[in-house]
Amino acid sequence: MTDEGQFYHAGSRVVSHAPNPHIAFGNPDAWFGGAARDFMKAVLTSNRLDWFQSAAAGLDNAALISIGKAAKHYTTNHTQAESMAEWALWQALDFLREGPAHRAQQDAAEWKRLRAREIAGSRWLIVGYGSIGQAVGTRVTALGGHVTGLRRSPGPAEGAHEIYPMGLVPDELPKADIVLLCVPHTPETEGIAGATFFSRMKPDALFMNLGRGALVDEEALVAALDAGHPAAAALDVTATEPLPPESPLWHHPKIRLTPHDSPETTGTILRADGTFVENLHRYVKGEPLLNLVDPRVFEDAG
Amino acid sequence: MTDEGQFYHAGSRVVSHAPNPHIAFGNPDAWFGGAARDFMKAVLTSNRLDWFQSAAAGLDNAALISIGKAAKHYTTNHTQAESMAEWALWQALDFLREGPAHRAQQDAAEWKRLRAREIAGSRWLIVGYGSIGQAVGTRVTALGGHVTGLRRSPGPAEGAHEIYPMGLVPDELPKADIVLLCVPHTPETEGIAGATFFSRMKPDALFMNLGRGALVDEEALVAALDAGHPAAAALDVTATEPLPPESPLWHHPKIRLTPHDSPETTGTILRADGTFVENLHRYVKGEPLLNLVDPRVFEDAG
Repeated sequence: MTDEGQFYHAGSRVVSHAPNPHIAFGNPDAWFGGAARDFMKAVLTSNRLDWFQSAAAGLDNAALISIGKAAKHYTTNHTQAESMAEWALWQALDFLREGPAHRAQQDAAEWKRLRAREIAGSRWLIVGYGSIGQAVGTRVTALGGHVTGLRRSPGPAEGAHEIYPMGLVPDELPKADIVLLCVPHTPETEGIAGATFFSRMKPDALFMNLGRGALVDEEALVAALDAGHPAAAALDVTATEPLPPESPLWHHPKIRLTPHDSPETTGTILRADGTFVENLHRYVKGEPLLNLVDPRVFEDAG
Repeated sequence: MTDEGQFYHAGSRVVSHAPNPHIAFGNPDAWFGGAARDFMKAVLTSNRLDWFQSAAAGLDNAALISIGKAAKHYTTNHTQAESMAEWALWQALDFLREGPAHRAQQDAAEWKRLRAREIAGSRWLIVGYGSIGQAVGTRVTALGGHVTGLRRSPGPAEGAHEIYPMGLVPDELPKADIVLLCVPHTPETEGIAGATFFSRMKPDALFMNLGRGALVDEEALVAALDAGHPAAAALDVTATEPLPPESPLWHHPKIRLTPHDSPETTGTILRADGTFVENLHRYVKGEPLLNLVDPRVFEDAG
C-alpha cells in the first residue's frame, strides 16, 4: 500500500483504489504511512475478507478488534521481541554509562572522566517473563548480567537464572539494579508499579516499562524519582498515548521517553514480512496458519 | 591511597606520608583521585621499589615509562576490555536506535515514532582484533551481529565470523554498518583513518575509536561527516587529551565524545583489584607474576 492510499495487489504492479481485499497484511507502512484511514476502510468494507495478518502481537486496540470481527481468519505476529530487547539494552547502557552526564559534559566542552557501571555483574528483575522478557533475559545473560524473571507459571526459562512467581515482586525489587516491566495489561497488573513498588527499589536502580502505560502509576513514579529512588526511568509506553504536551513526564530530568516505538526497526519489519510470507504459503496450500487467533477473543471484546 | 596523599599500608590501617614503597598498585584512585602527584613522587623516590602493578594495559605514557625504569618488576593489567566493549555496544545502540533524534523529540514534547535499526543483522568491522576487539566481537556475535576482524596475524578468533589481514581494510570498509578502531598506535597505524578511509564508508555507517587519537586524521573526519559519510562518529580518544575547548569535535552534531573513560567502570576496578590480589599472592609465595613486562621495553623507550 502506498502513502497515497493506493493498493498494490500481491505479486503484481496493478494498483487499485477500491481493492475489496480477500487477504490483507497490516504492516507498519499501512498503519504509520500516510494512508492508515484508507487501509482501515478498505479492510472493514470488504465483503470477502478471509484472512488478516497483523504485524503486531497485541489485540488491545479498537481498530484491531474491529478487524478481528470482520475477518474470517486473523493471525498475529510475534517478531517484535528482538527489537524491544535491544531497546532495553540501549536504555540500560545509557543509564549505566552515565549517558546524560556525558552529553552535558560534551555540551560544556568539559573533559572529565566519569565512572560508569556495566551490564556484566548487574542484577535484572524482569516482571513478566514471556517472549519479550526472555528476549531481554538471554541478551543480558550473554553480556554477563544476572537475570531474575517473574511470571505466573513457574519452572526454568531460557536466559533467566531463576524464575519466581509474581507474588515475589516485593522481595526481589530491593535486589535489582534494573527493573523491567513487560507483563500484559490485565485487571491484576493495572497500576502494579505504584508508590510501594518504587519505595522498594534501590536508589541507584533504573526502572523501565516495555509493557503498557496502565501498569504504572505515573504520579507515584514522578514522586519516587523526586524522592531519589529509583535513580531514573525509561518508558516506551505511557498511560495516555500520544503523551499530552502538558504531561510532566516530558521534561523530567530523570525520565527517558520513547514514543511506543521500541518494536520499530527494519529488523522487525523483515521478520514480520517473513511471517506473512510463511502464512501466505500456508494459505495458498490450505495448511493451518501460524498464530491464528480464536474468533471468540474478538466476540468477547464486546 | 587517600585523595589527601596519605598511604594505607597493605593489610593495615596505618597511614604514612613517606611510604618509601616496596610494592605499589597504580589503580584509578591513585591516578585520578586528588593525589596523583604524591603517588608518583612516592613511587619514583622509593629506594626499594621491587614491584609495581599497573591497572592499565598500555605503556605509552611518560609516567608509566619512568615507573617501569624505577621498578624492578612491572606488571600490567588486561581487565579493561569488558568495560570498553560495553562502551562500544552503548555507542552503537545509541546510534542505531536514533538516540539523538529521540532526545530532541523528547525536548520538544513531540510524540512521533522513529524507525531504528538493530545490532542483530548489523555488520561490524573491527580494525585490530586483540583483547578489546575480541571482547566486542563476542558480544556483538551473541546479539546476532556479523563480525569481521582485521589483524596482522591470520587465523580464527573467538567472536569473529572471519579474520582478515590488515591490508583488506579498503575492501571491507564499504560493507560495514559499524567500524571500530582498536589497533595499537604504531608508526604503521598512525593516521590510518583519513580521507580515503572515510570515503569508503557507507553513508549510514558509524565510525568508533577506542584505540588512540593519533589513529585518526580529525580534520578528515570532520570533513567526511560534513560530506555525509559516515553518518556519525563516537570517539573515546582524541589526538590531544584533554581535548582543547576550541576543538571543533566538541560541538559537531554528528560526533559523540567521551573523555577517554571507556575503561572506567566499577567492574574494571574490581577486576584490576583481582589481578593485584592474585599477583600479591604470587609475590608473597615467590611465584612468577602475571603480565610481567620485559624490562628492556622501558630501556628501549629512551
